[in-house]
Amino acid sequence: MATATAHPDFSLISSEDVEGTTVYDPNGNEIGEIDHLMIDKVSGCVRYAVMSFGGFLGLGHSHYPLPWNSLTYDKGREGYLADVTEQQLKDAPEFSDDSWTDRDWEKRVHEHYQTQPYWDEQKRAAGQSQTGSTPTDR
Amino acid sequence: MATATAHPDFSLISSEDVEGTTVYDPNGNEIGEIDHLMIDKVSGCVRYAVMSFGGFLGLGHSHYPLPWNSLTYDKGREGYLADVTEQQLKDAPEFSDDSWTDRDWEKRVHEHYQTQPYWDEQKRAAGQSQTGSTPTDR
Repeated sequence: MATATAHPDFSLISSEDVEGTTVYDPNGNEIGEIDHLMIDKVSGCVRYAVMSFGGFLGLGHSHYPLPWNSLTYDKGREGYLADVTEQQLKDAPEFSDDSWTDRDWEKRVHEHYQTQPYWDEQKRAAGQSQTGSTPTDR
Repeated sequence: MATATAHPDFSLISSEDVEGTTVYDPNGNEIGEIDHLMIDKVSGCVRYAVMSFGGFLGLGHSHYPLPWNSLTYDKGREGYLADVTEQQLKDAPEFSDDSWTDRDWEKRVHEHYQTQPYWDEQKRAAGQSQTGSTPTDR
């Protein structure tokens, strides 16, 4: 089993160690590993983990991108928990190298995995700083 | 010259391509390359780029961590611009594997490179959503 790091209490992890980290399904079964990450060049935040599923699940492709928001780090297992079903992976929107610049594809993928698009979070954060008000104003 | 990606208009980059990306000083001189990234396991955001300086600058160590905030992606050069001086690199706080869990070390490094600590940004963002009010409230 690949582990994310030899120092399980660390909150920082090397990009070299993320690649190869095991991914588990909601039942705790190993379903694959992280092959590489897709990172926003400017903010430096990870947007997608491209999973490698090897011989698992009998999927049609060997690599599947998952929105970062659909993964949770599991300290006990030193791996990531993917809140996705086998059927979701099988039915995932087709992707190619062009998908990374295709906001429509990004929308479909986030909808497919029922996870919050990262660009909505950015808008919300920006909106809070511009127009935010609180109950304590009353 | 290593380039960050074959698709310069993409805002997403593979973690595999970040490793090896050239880093330039403020005068546009190549000073090294990114060896690997240190990523927050939970948020998925890059906090440090560990630079490899090879034979450049005659530095005492071959690897130096730079806060992510001190780097800017330069689309024209397809590399990162580091807003640091040779003297800053030479005088950088010593680091070891233990540094990644040492908030005091992190403070010293961010002070040394005169860049905003990422944990302050998180606090500010949290504060905005709880207590934000705007001039339009008046």
